Amino acid sequence: MKKDDLYFLKEAIKEAKLGQRNGGLPIGSVLVKNNIIIGRGHNRRVQEDSVILHAEMSCLENAGRLKAHDYKQCTIYSTLSPCDMCSGAILLYNIPRVVIGENENFKGPEEYLYENGVDLVNLNLEECKTILSDFIYKNPILWYEDICIE
Amino acid sequence: MKKDDLYFLKEAIKEAKLGQRNGGLPIGSVLVKNNIIIGRGHNRRVQEDSVILHAEMSCLENAGRLKAHDYKQCTIYSTLSPCDMCSGAILLYNIPRVVIGENENFKGPEEYLYENGVDLVNLNLEECKTILSDFIYKNPILWYEDICIE
Repeated sequence: MKKDDLYFLKEAIKEAKLGQRNGGLPIGSVLVKNNIIIGRGHNRRVQEDSVILHAEMSCLENAGRLKAHDYKQCTIYSTLSPCDMCSGAILLYNIPRVVIGENENFKGPEEYLYENGVDLVNLNLEECKTILSDFIYKNPILWYEDICIE
Repeated sequence: MKKDDLYFLKEAIKEAKLGQRNGGLPIGSVLVKNNIIIGRGHNRRVQEDSVILHAEMSCLENAGRLKAHDYKQCTIYSTLSPCDMCSGAILLYNIPRVVIGENENFKGPEEYLYENGVDLVNLNLEECKTILSDFIYKNPILWYEDICIE
């Protein structure tokens, strides 16, 4: 964990809360380059009827078209462990570091990220766990809509 | 290879050409469920200044919010081997089958898809190779903008 990780993760939490206030899933993300936030976003499945605008994807889209050498200086923060798609985006753009709030409500392919050289740090924050578990408890149909639980 | 694979891949090629006519990268995709096209799309990096709207992502977004059991009956067609992000989306939604036009201009993590149970078929079509290689030859800065080639 680095000095400002908690500060930036709290910015991701602000995004999660903003998304929830707008009727969406409370998952947020920020992209940080050289200690400056250059992108931020939250899950927009409900708001945009989107299957691709997870928090990390919204955040990357919001940051705009960066160069490969920009991504290599970035850390992406997310309130939740990135799913397969978001982990794939992290690998595509060679983002070397990922800081997450928790992986109890959902855990993505963290081992695959490690194997591919990504430094993933889990801050294991109660606030992140509670925001999302409360949401899932109240909105199970929405949460499980596209997740296969056979 | 199944009976209608070539037909649906040609629909993906139509998407690639449509994208190119609109000034974008010529990569296209269609999503097929029970032999019916339920989503289609092309790369929109240029058109939307997007870092996430690859052909497969545009196609999935266009198909809308499906249920897990819908995705399990789908095949996704793409003119090009899916990158890390698009492969991750395929895994996220448990799409069991992927048919591609080629993997010479770019090859994504096909082995990772195989390892995770995805049936990937490469039709190895000269038309797909030529459309994209001609584009890359004429637009190298655009093609390599966010790809790390160290």
